[in-house]
Amino acid sequence: MSVGNFPFPFMNAVAGVKLGTASAGIKTVGRQDVVILEVAPGSQVSGVFTQNAFCAAPVSLCKEHMADCDTRYLLVNSGNANACTGEEGLADARDACAELARLTGTKAQQVLPFSTGVIGERLPMDRLLGALPHALVDLTEDGWEAAAQGIMTTDTQPKGASEQFEHEGVVITVTGIAKGSGMICPNMATMLGYIATDAKVSKALLDQLSKQAADKSFNRITVDGDTSTNDSCMLIATGHAALPELVSSADALYTKLFDALVRVYTVLAQSIVGDGEGATKFVTVNVEGGKSEAECLEVAYSVAQSPLVKTALFASDPNWGRIVAAIGYAKVDSLDANLVRVWLGDELIVENGGCAANYTEAAGQAVMDQDEISIRIDLGRGESRECIWTTDLSHDYIKINAEYRS
Amino acid sequence: MSVGNFPFPFMNAVAGVKLGTASAGIKTVGRQDVVILEVAPGSQVSGVFTQNAFCAAPVSLCKEHMADCDTRYLLVNSGNANACTGEEGLADARDACAELARLTGTKAQQVLPFSTGVIGERLPMDRLLGALPHALVDLTEDGWEAAAQGIMTTDTQPKGASEQFEHEGVVITVTGIAKGSGMICPNMATMLGYIATDAKVSKALLDQLSKQAADKSFNRITVDGDTSTNDSCMLIATGHAALPELVSSADALYTKLFDALVRVYTVLAQSIVGDGEGATKFVTVNVEGGKSEAECLEVAYSVAQSPLVKTALFASDPNWGRIVAAIGYAKVDSLDANLVRVWLGDELIVENGGCAANYTEAAGQAVMDQDEISIRIDLGRGESRECIWTTDLSHDYIKINAEYRS
Repeated sequence: MSVGNFPFPFMNAVAGVKLGTASAGIKTVGRQDVVILEVAPGSQVSGVFTQNAFCAAPVSLCKEHMADCDTRYLLVNSGNANACTGEEGLADARDACAELARLTGTKAQQVLPFSTGVIGERLPMDRLLGALPHALVDLTEDGWEAAAQGIMTTDTQPKGASEQFEHEGVVITVTGIAKGSGMICPNMATMLGYIATDAKVSKALLDQLSKQAADKSFNRITVDGDTSTNDSCMLIATGHAALPELVSSADALYTKLFDALVRVYTVLAQSIVGDGEGATKFVTVNVEGGKSEAECLEVAYSVAQSPLVKTALFASDPNWGRIVAAIGYAKVDSLDANLVRVWLGDELIVENGGCAANYTEAAGQAVMDQDEISIRIDLGRGESRECIWTTDLSHDYIKINAEYRS
Repeated sequence: MSVGNFPFPFMNAVAGVKLGTASAGIKTVGRQDVVILEVAPGSQVSGVFTQNAFCAAPVSLCKEHMADCDTRYLLVNSGNANACTGEEGLADARDACAELARLTGTKAQQVLPFSTGVIGERLPMDRLLGALPHALVDLTEDGWEAAAQGIMTTDTQPKGASEQFEHEGVVITVTGIAKGSGMICPNMATMLGYIATDAKVSKALLDQLSKQAADKSFNRITVDGDTSTNDSCMLIATGHAALPELVSSADALYTKLFDALVRVYTVLAQSIVGDGEGATKFVTVNVEGGKSEAECLEVAYSVAQSPLVKTALFASDPNWGRIVAAIGYAKVDSLDANLVRVWLGDELIVENGGCAANYTEAAGQAVMDQDEISIRIDLGRGESRECIWTTDLSHDYIKINAEYRS
């Protein structure tokens, strides 16, 4: 189950990026589970990665290769995460990069590997390597939707977003795909994202854009508080648009590009939340009036990750006591409960340390009956604010995660 | 559902403590939901309380009264938490204390109030006050089991523990009861505990014993990461045993008493875990080889609170990848994944950053099929260790918490 439908959008091609898919039958016979992204020479590539201490072999190798030289290929497989596979798993990832380099006349360091799926099992290397020529033959600028399908694991829908804007008469494109449904948390769990633009951007600024856009989107979603071993979100700038290189954040283009990136990243992140395992509600938690953004996030995650709040959301139960309890145990110094106000949708439900005077259960129920629910919390002690997105916790979450090996 | 059966143990009376119950029909007509503990003059009373910023009216008043003068009565009601009830709720708690003081010829400050149950609703004061004389008539040294029943909310079983030890020819008794099943977390969620001894203990040492015993027991359990507005754990020392007052922690009696308290507290805490909402597994998480106890706890809670680990436990699935992922995202600085070893029961399942060489799925499955499961984690970087207890996450957890208003 997932919340609402996300019709796959029209994906504008990004000059300088081609995508191809093939089937290696890694977990399911016949499924397209190998994806190659080819980026034109001269492209810049930035990324943010999982902070999990048990990061997977491909993540380690990816960082190593990015430090070495310019990237020409991104190689993704679904169905197997190549995580917790020790030295052998690292050798497998190296072999896959080397084979793709051999086939394309590039260096192994110019290939970045990514894997998602089952943890702790070796990749079926024969089948994986055998699929590479098929994926290369398939490379096309219009391959975004097939690639979005190819990187899916427990996702019920492919996730894509694309937009264009104009700068000094030139159209700039931002297009991206992502995967992820379970294990979604602040530090980007079991999530892969590939976003590309044809703008020309210096490596330093691209790193900055990549990190800031991820912070405003993928790092603001949570489904169950778990972070995975393989999360990566890559940002590619091909420079094929007819504009000079962006080298200063004071440039007007920087702001336009950042805004477009945040919108694309946010659509992708919200699609992941909406496809959360067993999700029946899409929940926005806004926290304002904090002394710092950090404490706003602390409160937001405390509410968003509370199993009791999440089951109440599933039950469409306007159980404000559980929200208040979750705010109360957030690690915020000297929070004055009497200054905290909470709204469910537009209904003020909590003030002065208790139920708001004019609140009625019927009004709360009307909000909770919706598929999309907003919880707004004013801490009453500052000017900072933050926003995150999450889901409810349903019977199907337990069913999916108790019955499937991920 | 709950894990295993906890036959209610024989409860040794504690000289100087009497308990009485009555029915005020707070949530359910006819149910014994009011409990009074009478402690003899000269008794010392210590307590540890919730750290939730939205702590309930009775918790605030309890702390205020303890600072004022010697306690003679503890008044507990179940069915209504008197939390998030603002100034009116505080006035209700004051009125209840005042009425019990009037009936017993004591001062209101000598009465400590406790409430557990629904949040955000006013207490039915007429019925509560009307029940007090009945509970007073019922006072008896043998009232422990009835009191354990009276303080229950969603608990499926009453929880008690009792033991005796000898010091210099004198028998010392430690007897206690507790309640709690959902919302159980590090900082003692929705949990009430009342433990008494007939030893004579100075207030300073009793405070220390109370805090340390709670740290080793109630603060080491977690069911779902939520902490409540009302948690309190009280330790009473009546001094009726024929021994001099304990005034030094260097005294041999101190160690004996501390050990007995920890055993009683631990049985109570583990009973709460075993009665976790929808629990089908009792899980012990041992973390050793840490640089500090704090980082051992961080890892233990990360594993114990991971919804993915908990659903795998429910499914009896030896999914070590999820355990490893949860260790990996614990907030521990510079954890070297290659040094971490993990055992499921006696089976080594993870070493050298991956699956242990001799591990077999069949061996892991045999451990997971048990009702009681031990997860042992060696961080390989120090000498500290910690232990916590938790449960799995089942369909029934969702059912209980989605269908019931707590």
